Amino acid sequence: MAFGADRPLAMDAGVLLAPWQIAYQTYGTLNAARSNAILVCHALTGDQHVANIHPVTGKRGWWETLVGPGRPVDTDRFFVICANVVGGCLGTTGPASLNPATGEPYGLDFPVVTVRDMVRAQALLLDRLGIDNLFCVVGGSMGGMQVLQWAASFPERVFAAIPIATACIHSAQNIAFHEVGRQAVMADPDWRGGRYFVDGAKPSKGLAVARMGAHITYLSEATLHRKFGRRLQDRAAPTFSFDADFQVESYLRYQGEAFVERFDANSYLYLTRAMDYFDLAADYGGVLANAFTGSRTRFCVVSFTSDWLFPTAGSRAIVHALNAVAASVSFVEIETDKGHDAFLLDEPELFATTGGFLAAAARARGL
Amino acid sequence: MAFGADRPLAMDAGVLLAPWQIAYQTYGTLNAARSNAILVCHALTGDQHVANIHPVTGKRGWWETLVGPGRPVDTDRFFVICANVVGGCLGTTGPASLNPATGEPYGLDFPVVTVRDMVRAQALLLDRLGIDNLFCVVGGSMGGMQVLQWAASFPERVFAAIPIATACIHSAQNIAFHEVGRQAVMADPDWRGGRYFVDGAKPSKGLAVARMGAHITYLSEATLHRKFGRRLQDRAAPTFSFDADFQVESYLRYQGEAFVERFDANSYLYLTRAMDYFDLAADYGGVLANAFTGSRTRFCVVSFTSDWLFPTAGSRAIVHALNAVAASVSFVEIETDKGHDAFLLDEPELFATTGGFLAAAARARGL
Repeated sequence: MAFGADRPLAMDAGVLLAPWQIAYQTYGTLNAARSNAILVCHALTGDQHVANIHPVTGKRGWWETLVGPGRPVDTDRFFVICANVVGGCLGTTGPASLNPATGEPYGLDFPVVTVRDMVRAQALLLDRLGIDNLFCVVGGSMGGMQVLQWAASFPERVFAAIPIATACIHSAQNIAFHEVGRQAVMADPDWRGGRYFVDGAKPSKGLAVARMGAHITYLSEATLHRKFGRRLQDRAAPTFSFDADFQVESYLRYQGEAFVERFDANSYLYLTRAMDYFDLAADYGGVLANAFTGSRTRFCVVSFTSDWLFPTAGSRAIVHALNAVAASVSFVEIETDKGHDAFLLDEPELFATTGGFLAAAARARGL
Repeated sequence: MAFGADRPLAMDAGVLLAPWQIAYQTYGTLNAARSNAILVCHALTGDQHVANIHPVTGKRGWWETLVGPGRPVDTDRFFVICANVVGGCLGTTGPASLNPATGEPYGLDFPVVTVRDMVRAQALLLDRLGIDNLFCVVGGSMGGMQVLQWAASFPERVFAAIPIATACIHSAQNIAFHEVGRQAVMADPDWRGGRYFVDGAKPSKGLAVARMGAHITYLSEATLHRKFGRRLQDRAAPTFSFDADFQVESYLRYQGEAFVERFDANSYLYLTRAMDYFDLAADYGGVLANAFTGSRTRFCVVSFTSDWLFPTAGSRAIVHALNAVAASVSFVEIETDKGHDAFLLDEPELFATTGGFLAAAARARGL
């Protein structure tokens, strides 16, 4: 969906972005009352391809466990929309897009993006699609931040909200991990100050290192132990070298290499920065509850016991704030050893929780 | 201390290293019975400068909290020795040393080092110093691995042992973090396959990224929150840029920059690898207790509640193994929010525990 100079995106950086476009996918059918729309918000390295074959990787949609026919977010029943976030690299305007002022990609001239900017862009898309009200907004991690921002910025447009494995604020430790990833990208001489597009170079090594480090934070120690332990890669004894002796090393290297094939390094900088900047309470006088005052949205907050990137404490803070303004909120902490990535995996309790919540909300909504 | 071809270091990689040398510091006075020696084993990026001004950084010794006159490891009473590990870069032979076969630095031709190699080298040093028996071996993290290896390899030479914030085995998660660090170094084009010495280049950017990532694992989330939180660096509002907006970013960048001034990138590869390879039970039929069968060494095992790099579970495994062979062991888990680095910091309970243990052991030893 393209927006011209008449519909600029007003960004927190103080820039009116125009022209700009937003790439999205839909699944299912919008009902006549236009009341069955569910917006799915993707995480840091996700995209709009929730439940279809990915055009770049050829892999299945990233949330087919949760979204699809007969799944908790049932595409036979709901009209599901997912848009690539602003600053991303799968079709929505971002640092790899052409800057009309120069005729070359923006690079670091692209304005720094915030979670609020992502939500503003999605709201403009929904306006254009003629969807005034969302039945539900759902997302995990950075997607969960967008869910919370939606509920705060546009409470009247959100009937139900499911923030999963997320927080209202990015912690110092999480900022620290992101900064290491950014420095890994920027340390790659092929990054060229963000202007790698000029001669076709790509900071693939730096971006791969960033992804490897981040990937560890998406898993739990228990998962790494269970999946890999100290097992060696295709051999009986260590090689006494710096080859990938251990399976976990080989796995991480593969994660890094696969990632750079599908993701833009500058987008990685921008989207990690957006998460770092996220501090919902700061916009409401430092009191998180104020973000939800008077909200009639129904919330279902989900966390996972072994998620050390977005620990349950962050979800509890959301629940406390919602309780403080007498909002409707249910909260489930799911027992799992799969870490932060649990929200993307086969977690029956997640499906039962979200499916049950959506069924009840649909009844309340008269769907 | 230099060793010639007559005293090669027999390394686990199958190499007889010669000539080689080991750099060390001593503090205090060896008594007439030669029975009051304490060996301090340093951690990954430590060195022999335990309790004196560091010759490169000009900073105070890295363990002056624990070691010195009147401290728990009392240099008025004990003869304290600390040697740079083999593979290190502060005087002991390592990858930056000249390879006599080529006349240039070893680089990656240096044999991969193990914790057992480090201990063998220390044992040869003690032989040369005429110290048959150690009153105590003490160390944290990789230093603690050496303590355990000492107790297993040379039980008759170790009267008391204090492994702190360590484990008998390096976990999959820890291998994963190390591998990211190594890949960060190797991704730096100035690393040049380990031959950066040829033209005076240094993979400083890659090594700095490695250090930044590792540094996060040495702290706890609570420490990062307490020390930095989301406070901004010398400004009132975020810059909407990729500058070090947050204090935690600035702090990490500084940690990376300071580290590359004092540490050799190849040594970093070798020493992380040594930790990855550490699996004490594997040398004893897979049963950790067998490593300590018949041991008369007195152990004091210490862990810290907020240490997620070497969690208390790893210390408990050591204690269980020692109990299984009826060894003398005391175990203290110290409540602190300072994370893995707690062993280097002002932790009164650590001083009380180690000081009390050493005082009792000294009485038992007749010191």
